[in-house]
Amino acid sequence: MSVHRLTLGDVLGEHRRGRPLGTAAVDGDVRLTYPELDARVDRLAAALAADGVGAGDRVLWLGRNSFRVLELLLAAGRLGAIFCPANWRQTADELAHVLDDLTPSVVVWEESEAVEKARGQVSLDARWVRSGEEYEAYLPGSATAPSIEVSPDAPVLALYTAAFDGRPNAALLSHSALIAHSMSLLHVRQMEDGFAFLACGPLFHVGTMMFTLATFQIGGKLVFTPAYEPAEVCRLIEAERCTQAFLFGPMIDGLVEANSGGAHDLSSLRFVSHSPAWDAMITVDDSPWCASGMGGYGQTEVGGMLTFLGLGMGGAGQAGRPSPLVHVRILDPAGEEVAPGEVGEICARGQSVFSGYWNRPELNEAKAADGWHHTGDLGRREPDGTLTFIGPRLRMIKSANENIYPAEVERALKTHPAVADAAVIGVPDERFGQSPKAVVVLADGASATAEEIIEHVRGEIASYKKPREVEFAAAIPKRGHTPDYDALDEAHGGGAYPGT
Amino acid sequence: MSVHRLTLGDVLGEHRRGRPLGTAAVDGDVRLTYPELDARVDRLAAALAADGVGAGDRVLWLGRNSFRVLELLLAAGRLGAIFCPANWRQTADELAHVLDDLTPSVVVWEESEAVEKARGQVSLDARWVRSGEEYEAYLPGSATAPSIEVSPDAPVLALYTAAFDGRPNAALLSHSALIAHSMSLLHVRQMEDGFAFLACGPLFHVGTMMFTLATFQIGGKLVFTPAYEPAEVCRLIEAERCTQAFLFGPMIDGLVEANSGGAHDLSSLRFVSHSPAWDAMITVDDSPWCASGMGGYGQTEVGGMLTFLGLGMGGAGQAGRPSPLVHVRILDPAGEEVAPGEVGEICARGQSVFSGYWNRPELNEAKAADGWHHTGDLGRREPDGTLTFIGPRLRMIKSANENIYPAEVERALKTHPAVADAAVIGVPDERFGQSPKAVVVLADGASATAEEIIEHVRGEIASYKKPREVEFAAAIPKRGHTPDYDALDEAHGGGAYPGT
Repeated sequence: MSVHRLTLGDVLGEHRRGRPLGTAAVDGDVRLTYPELDARVDRLAAALAADGVGAGDRVLWLGRNSFRVLELLLAAGRLGAIFCPANWRQTADELAHVLDDLTPSVVVWEESEAVEKARGQVSLDARWVRSGEEYEAYLPGSATAPSIEVSPDAPVLALYTAAFDGRPNAALLSHSALIAHSMSLLHVRQMEDGFAFLACGPLFHVGTMMFTLATFQIGGKLVFTPAYEPAEVCRLIEAERCTQAFLFGPMIDGLVEANSGGAHDLSSLRFVSHSPAWDAMITVDDSPWCASGMGGYGQTEVGGMLTFLGLGMGGAGQAGRPSPLVHVRILDPAGEEVAPGEVGEICARGQSVFSGYWNRPELNEAKAADGWHHTGDLGRREPDGTLTFIGPRLRMIKSANENIYPAEVERALKTHPAVADAAVIGVPDERFGQSPKAVVVLADGASATAEEIIEHVRGEIASYKKPREVEFAAAIPKRGHTPDYDALDEAHGGGAYPGT
Repeated sequence: MSVHRLTLGDVLGEHRRGRPLGTAAVDGDVRLTYPELDARVDRLAAALAADGVGAGDRVLWLGRNSFRVLELLLAAGRLGAIFCPANWRQTADELAHVLDDLTPSVVVWEESEAVEKARGQVSLDARWVRSGEEYEAYLPGSATAPSIEVSPDAPVLALYTAAFDGRPNAALLSHSALIAHSMSLLHVRQMEDGFAFLACGPLFHVGTMMFTLATFQIGGKLVFTPAYEPAEVCRLIEAERCTQAFLFGPMIDGLVEANSGGAHDLSSLRFVSHSPAWDAMITVDDSPWCASGMGGYGQTEVGGMLTFLGLGMGGAGQAGRPSPLVHVRILDPAGEEVAPGEVGEICARGQSVFSGYWNRPELNEAKAADGWHHTGDLGRREPDGTLTFIGPRLRMIKSANENIYPAEVERALKTHPAVADAAVIGVPDERFGQSPKAVVVLADGASATAEEIIEHVRGEIASYKKPREVEFAAAIPKRGHTPDYDALDEAHGGGAYPGT
């Protein structure tokens, strides 16, 4: 066994010894100390092993937030298996896709029509355990987890994300990656001994999961609540003296309203400044994470945050600088680094990078081309070395020998005061192969000519990236949050893209 | 190439891009930005490679503190080689041992009689480069470092320590171990963007080296000064706006004296509270590292600190809790974990643990027995889970079936007000094999009987550990800081130790 080994199970083993009286998890009436959590994880791992769960096998959670999510993650980790908390609010079809794709050996679920319908749609040889009494009965009275040597490089968490082809993919994160990400968050957020985190965002999303894991890493207290409910969140912050909760913008406004009159003492919360009423209720935190307004750039595939504004405050780039455990390059489609100020794909290497998607060998090869994780997002190094996130790298226009990313041109178009929305496509061009064309929605009551808009873009970015044509439209068709480029191409004459 | 790779070279590659204008190193007239440091490291690596330095080869520094120590470490790292900064103030014989033991391919040295004498004593096929002009001429005008794939698990730093058999051993630390240790220090010391460290302690010692490396990890500024000189340290803190320096007790008193009248503005320094005069000169820091008085337990073999008081403030154990990247067990000589409250050897696993000593296969096997790094030090888990460091595990007494560590009994003896110093040996015992015997030095003017002292110890620790006899002496013979047990055995009838 390597003296360098550190798995989530090893972290739990340390906390059992180092925090014999420390509260690990609170969830409704449930309160577990670290030794109690450790004993339950042992029992759960023994039950999973008895159902045949071994190295590389999957365990699926379909339910709301619960302390059982933490238990299941740690028990799967003891066995070298992979735990996936999935969004149970999806449609039956979407859930059936998850079941078919992940082929879990054990599914722990909460009552839901969609889950039951999905279960009927798939042929899956899995053990189904209902959360609650059935789950408690599933745990043997007492048991030692099977003694299995787990590599820190083994994937232990799967989170569905990145629906490139319309279906989400499960990003696999290893023990090492999760621990590395937790360390960077402990540092930038200044999470110290005694930290208590209220998991009031969804645990199937990396934003809540990353703080849950970092709190676990430092042996703090995790408070679980099924979902965000303002009055209950206020009550829990006061009752459990929470240091932090998963909150942003509208959620914070909800708390201010729910706590008007100061019914609950929220002063234990050390968080981001938001509004005078909020700032008066809490303790405004001066850690780099909070002082920078929780800025940075991240994605599930790097465990959460790849860069932190708190590591580059005052810099030109709103994404700041990388976590100390990763390094970043801005690469062009040929894998060459672009010069500072130029836009390319944000690529990274380091300890918190994921281990690929479950069951997507071809996609994984492309994502890890040349030994760099390709985020699929565009970014830029500013002259001071800080990073700016531009937008998703959905497609590329090739004009003469130049690469033009629609997201960068759209960003420049939207800085024109008369432009409410914009999208950029490539149209066939006899001389250059393609040239960029803008589809622009004007703001209510505003007016601008195509020439004015093109001239504006030329002042913002390199001249060769400016649209040769501007067409005005009433709206930009969307697919989710991004322009529907296929529809735009069809409506506005796009085509001749590189590789087609 | 792995997307997870992170070496010291990768960190430097990130800083070159992320901090194009950031000052990496200051040393006298020398000021290097990160891109300049990176370019010099490339040139130095090319020069070392031309001298045959490759994976696993050693590069030795014999000199005072210098920015070249950082350059040499990073250049060796680029080649998969090992860099060792050694104590050049040793005798010629001691230096000759280092040369014989480490067999470096390249030695960079500063003028010293002892070094020249040692060089004459050994037969070593090494390239000798004198620091200063000769070193500058050694660097090619411009060069790219050879493109070598370096594993993060490769040892990169060797520090001499742990003279178990009278001769020191070189502890090998890998890229991963150094990066992990830096992360824990970044967290506990709250080292943020813009951190500037003044390396005014010796760089061949882990205490100064660990802060140098953590500052590098976060892209901070390193200020080098040849050695601790109070007036110069004050000047540098002011001139470079240093956030921290390597200082403790008497060094701080020296600064207070040197800066009486407030000639220099030391307010940039964020450090430990020490005295009213000191606290008025600096900014007293509230990070867990400083607020806890820099408490914890460490050794070179774990990269510096294994535990931090700042992770267990208010706890019973003065060593606090382990860094988030290691885990600790207190083991008996058979490798079994002892109960909380019992003394055993502090053993650890985790990311910052060393890769063994250079050229000591048998010792390394013993140090890593059962997959746990054996620190050679005794400790105890307090009931609240925090850790207490007891003392070095120099030897063990076996009485009946019980293990008795002299260090633990000595600690208890010294809590008696009449006892100025004490040492405990094992004497042959017909019934029990051995029994503990105390040699006690009384405080000036104090008196106590053997019975009173034995009774006192019985109140402090388990009864079977109390001395059966107490002999009074004028002084305890010492070997360095610890009792000379061989001399004590001879003078006071010790013997029959387990294993002899």
